[in-house]
Amino acid sequence: MKIGFVGTGAMGRPMLANLVKRGHSVVAYDIVDDALAAAARLGAGRAASAAAAAGGADLVITMLPSSSHVEAAYLGVGGVLEGIGPGRLCVDMSTIDPSVSRRVAGAATRRGARFIDAPVSGGVPRAEDGTLAIMVGGDPRDVEEARPVLAVMGANIIHVGPVGSGEVAKLCNNLVAGVAAVAVSEAFRIAEGFGVDPRILTDVISKSSGNTWVMEHMHPVGGLVAKAPSSHDYTPGFTTDLMAKDLGLAVSAARDLRVPVVVAPAAQQVLRLASSHGLGRKDFSSVYVFLKPSSGQAPV
Amino acid sequence: MKIGFVGTGAMGRPMLANLVKRGHSVVAYDIVDDALAAAARLGAGRAASAAAAAGGADLVITMLPSSSHVEAAYLGVGGVLEGIGPGRLCVDMSTIDPSVSRRVAGAATRRGARFIDAPVSGGVPRAEDGTLAIMVGGDPRDVEEARPVLAVMGANIIHVGPVGSGEVAKLCNNLVAGVAAVAVSEAFRIAEGFGVDPRILTDVISKSSGNTWVMEHMHPVGGLVAKAPSSHDYTPGFTTDLMAKDLGLAVSAARDLRVPVVVAPAAQQVLRLASSHGLGRKDFSSVYVFLKPSSGQAPV
Amino acid sequence: MKIGFVGTGAMGRPMLANLVKRGHSVVAYDIVDDALAAAARLGAGRAASAAAAAGGADLVITMLPSSSHVEAAYLGVGGVLEGIGPGRLCVDMSTIDPSVSRRVAGAATRRGARFIDAPVSGGVPRAEDGTLAIMVGGDPRDVEEARPVLAVMGANIIHVGPVGSGEVAKLCNNLVAGVAAVAVSEAFRIAEGFGVDPRILTDVISKSSGNTWVMEHMHPVGGLVAKAPSSHDYTPGFTTDLMAKDLGLAVSAARDLRVPVVVAPAAQQVLRLASSHGLGRKDFSSVYVFLKPSSGQAPV
Amino acid sequence: MKIGFVGTGAMGRPMLANLVKRGHSVVAYDIVDDALAAAARLGAGRAASAAAAAGGADLVITMLPSSSHVEAAYLGVGGVLEGIGPGRLCVDMSTIDPSVSRRVAGAATRRGARFIDAPVSGGVPRAEDGTLAIMVGGDPRDVEEARPVLAVMGANIIHVGPVGSGEVAKLCNNLVAGVAAVAVSEAFRIAEGFGVDPRILTDVISKSSGNTWVMEHMHPVGGLVAKAPSSHDYTPGFTTDLMAKDLGLAVSAARDLRVPVVVAPAAQQVLRLASSHGLGRKDFSSVYVFLKPSSGQAPV
Repeated sequence: MKIGFVGTGAMGRPMLANLVKRGHSVVAYDIVDDALAAAARLGAGRAASAAAAAGGADLVITMLPSSSHVEAAYLGVGGVLEGIGPGRLCVDMSTIDPSVSRRVAGAATRRGARFIDAPVSGGVPRAEDGTLAIMVGGDPRDVEEARPVLAVMGANIIHVGPVGSGEVAKLCNNLVAGVAAVAVSEAFRIAEGFGVDPRILTDVISKSSGNTWVMEHMHPVGGLVAKAPSSHDYTPGFTTDLMAKDLGLAVSAARDLRVPVVVAPAAQQVLRLASSHGLGRKDFSSVYVFLKPSSGQAPV
Repeated sequence: MKIGFVGTGAMGRPMLANLVKRGHSVVAYDIVDDALAAAARLGAGRAASAAAAAGGADLVITMLPSSSHVEAAYLGVGGVLEGIGPGRLCVDMSTIDPSVSRRVAGAATRRGARFIDAPVSGGVPRAEDGTLAIMVGGDPRDVEEARPVLAVMGANIIHVGPVGSGEVAKLCNNLVAGVAAVAVSEAFRIAEGFGVDPRILTDVISKSSGNTWVMEHMHPVGGLVAKAPSSHDYTPGFTTDLMAKDLGLAVSAARDLRVPVVVAPAAQQVLRLASSHGLGRKDFSSVYVFLKPSSGQAPV
Repeated sequence: MKIGFVGTGAMGRPMLANLVKRGHSVVAYDIVDDALAAAARLGAGRAASAAAAAGGADLVITMLPSSSHVEAAYLGVGGVLEGIGPGRLCVDMSTIDPSVSRRVAGAATRRGARFIDAPVSGGVPRAEDGTLAIMVGGDPRDVEEARPVLAVMGANIIHVGPVGSGEVAKLCNNLVAGVAAVAVSEAFRIAEGFGVDPRILTDVISKSSGNTWVMEHMHPVGGLVAKAPSSHDYTPGFTTDLMAKDLGLAVSAARDLRVPVVVAPAAQQVLRLASSHGLGRKDFSSVYVFLKPSSGQAPV
Repeated sequence: MKIGFVGTGAMGRPMLANLVKRGHSVVAYDIVDDALAAAARLGAGRAASAAAAAGGADLVITMLPSSSHVEAAYLGVGGVLEGIGPGRLCVDMSTIDPSVSRRVAGAATRRGARFIDAPVSGGVPRAEDGTLAIMVGGDPRDVEEARPVLAVMGANIIHVGPVGSGEVAKLCNNLVAGVAAVAVSEAFRIAEGFGVDPRILTDVISKSSGNTWVMEHMHPVGGLVAKAPSSHDYTPGFTTDLMAKDLGLAVSAARDLRVPVVVAPAAQQVLRLASSHGLGRKDFSSVYVFLKPSSGQAPV
């Protein structure tokens, strides 16, 4: 299949590589020259704009870092919607504001094209293995059309609902995971202060109402879970900056919906603070490191 | 065995009943006459004070609503430590500040007695069934001495560490559970705003990094998990007031330790607000109800 | 002067009325028919679109409820930038995201027009009196050109800096005012719990480090400051919904700048909760009412 | 007058020095030998315990770092209430939990003595000058009895209400001041991100609804207010650790009263974090430094 691929950064590149390996003819574009050159070395053709990448394509994939990048890549001068052929399908795999997904989908429809959102989780390692989890929002027919191509990049493809629903599902999942990581970190800092063995506490919680995927797989305290980033100097995994971004998107979506949210913004801001103080590119479970007790002599 | 039992409220009563049923000779005390009368109807003897209940006992059990009640019951005039025999063991099963456990344990030691903390989880239903989970802190020898009696009341008895550790484990577990309930509620309110099917979202999250015991067993959205309080008008379970109390204990412990905590106090306060606005005696998962969107016409 | 006026809602109308009274020839547009009809009754001409209102105007004024309304009114089909004459000046008096001000200003420049932001404070009463405070961001020459017209609507016109700076100043001021209102409410709820006379506490704080404009003029406790909304059933003043909106804009701006913020989102969300629970159209100082203590029997 | 003085740390010492200078006969006690030796060098007699310092005194003053210190100094073995003469007056000038003030006052009454709380503000410089602000809670007759002695240490003595009210007033004032410092810091970080001149923003806010004592006198941005700690490398003033302590006391009091609080715990925890990251002994306005933007390349 002829695929236009816009956004060949750290995540986009291994996804594109898998498409090329499976015999698809991919034409790529990225506003960063080095990123585009790297895509070319993987076997993609080079386009001079998003519109050009979309030009002759049967299907367009976009993988971009933020809502404003997606808006620009689709709606801007030289954007996807300028170049795309009539009736063609766009698959945006970026993690962005679901309202933006819907706005871009509307613009695509007016232009005679189609749009689905399909954000991923799993990070670079699973992008390389082609085993990403992919949450998809869009018309069922469109989702089925995209499925064979998505299956090259991911192992677990879930159709959540109409356009934007993929983003909603991803953000809601990450909201809980991000908050849980902070909560688990707080709990283990308190236990540590009382001299309680974190291994025993982990055992207790794992069998009780406080159990979470995050503690089982991404335990913020090093040395307890062998594969957790905490046991490897908090090498991500999923960075503090990316988790702060996703929590920010969830909180911003809540604002637009007038939904009051309380622990999500608290977690968002402590991750943002952790990033300001040097942990932005570490795994987000490093918030445990950030929440260290004050050693001061002053009274409490 | 002769057991002194102080605190025969809603939780203490079924625990005491199981001890009586198993043939223990229980002498009870409660500052509330009605609570004490109820204990007597279950077969316990009546003492005129905590000291008197402790008087001839081989073992003293206390089950009280707060740190200050425990301090008064042990250290006050007519308290347990006035009456207890030399070398006897006290088992405090209340959920309180671990620092208070340690302070009372120290006083018990100075008085020639011994003290362990053994808070429970599971609520009235599991107290009645004798299947409480019991987290124990204390000297290993003391814990072993208490174990046969604890086994009458609970099914899962875990020795966490030295005195206070039972409380720490319980508070840390509940910190995560309480925060998770708020986070899950926020996520599902956002999804609802976008019209995403909560059943599908539950399925997505259950297989991803946002999975939590709370969502699996106490899903805040009604109708998705048959046994969850949300499917039964938020009949507890574990009340909003009790969860606010436990989060408050955890946050207060963090303060004493100079540990910065962020999502725990945010969750504590939203539960406190939910209680102020009528949900105190509902299950704590009813925070979902409290986090309803504003319907106002005003801009966001 | 010929003035195009877009946005004739509750705030825009009295501003427009003052312009008409001072002899300006105003042509109005609003997407809501009733709002436009009301403007016509005040003496304005009716345009069929924002573009048409801008058509023959020497100066265009916009007064809209949110960032997305402003974007649509300027950049959309039939928007101001379609109709405006070459070199003409646009004055946006809405309270919106400063980044949107800058984006619209950029679009105006590309279209050969000019743009300044000039958000107001003071509410409907001061709009009627023509005594609004107006914070202006833009090129000094543009600001001077607009000043005589602004002076018809406001009494205190401050040039803060380049485009967007008026919005920044307003949001930053309201961030502090909104947070202060919550903080003062919390302080007086605590004092009340201890039975301290709020009048004496007000006197103490007014002479100490906790003094704030908010306590002096908008005291959240009724009966202490005669003109405060709290002394008049929390009739606004400035509604909870509008303050939640402005705090939301400030928090969102912080997100875009990667600035960690902590008390602003906490205040934003408690106001949002207060709105969900019926206080959205009351003065924002009614958050004091919302922060009522829980009366529950349960332990703390 | 013969005065017993317990607690001769950094704040107590200059207060004691003023009493000695004015001819009072002071007998001091401190559990820290060096602190007691320093008091002796200022002309105080040395007592071997709090009880001994209280022994022959007409009036007892205590100035201690925390609630638990006050409880121990009054109620513990060798404490004030062991030594104090019948009918004598105790003046606790520590900043502590108002509930503890009330509990100690009750114990004093049972012992035949009297107790008032009289916490101070102004820090070491004003302690040295004898110009502290003193907020007093207690029986009016007791307060009048203490007034001449208080007047030696402070310039502004306010009788707030019954026992504990001095503490309540201080904590409530500091709650607002502490939250305001964080809010002002957040506002100026946002403004900075947009390139708005902080001097102009200060001018705008000072005339508007966001004005606060904190901005006028303790502006967190250096170079704008000459006497502010921020203009002198954040030399306190009032340390981050002490403000975190006072916010912690206010939040803890709210918990006991079941009052929901939202911005106070948020401010408390960010100050605690700032302390963990090295700013504990700087002025609390240094939270501005802590709230620096993240410089990361990652998307928001």
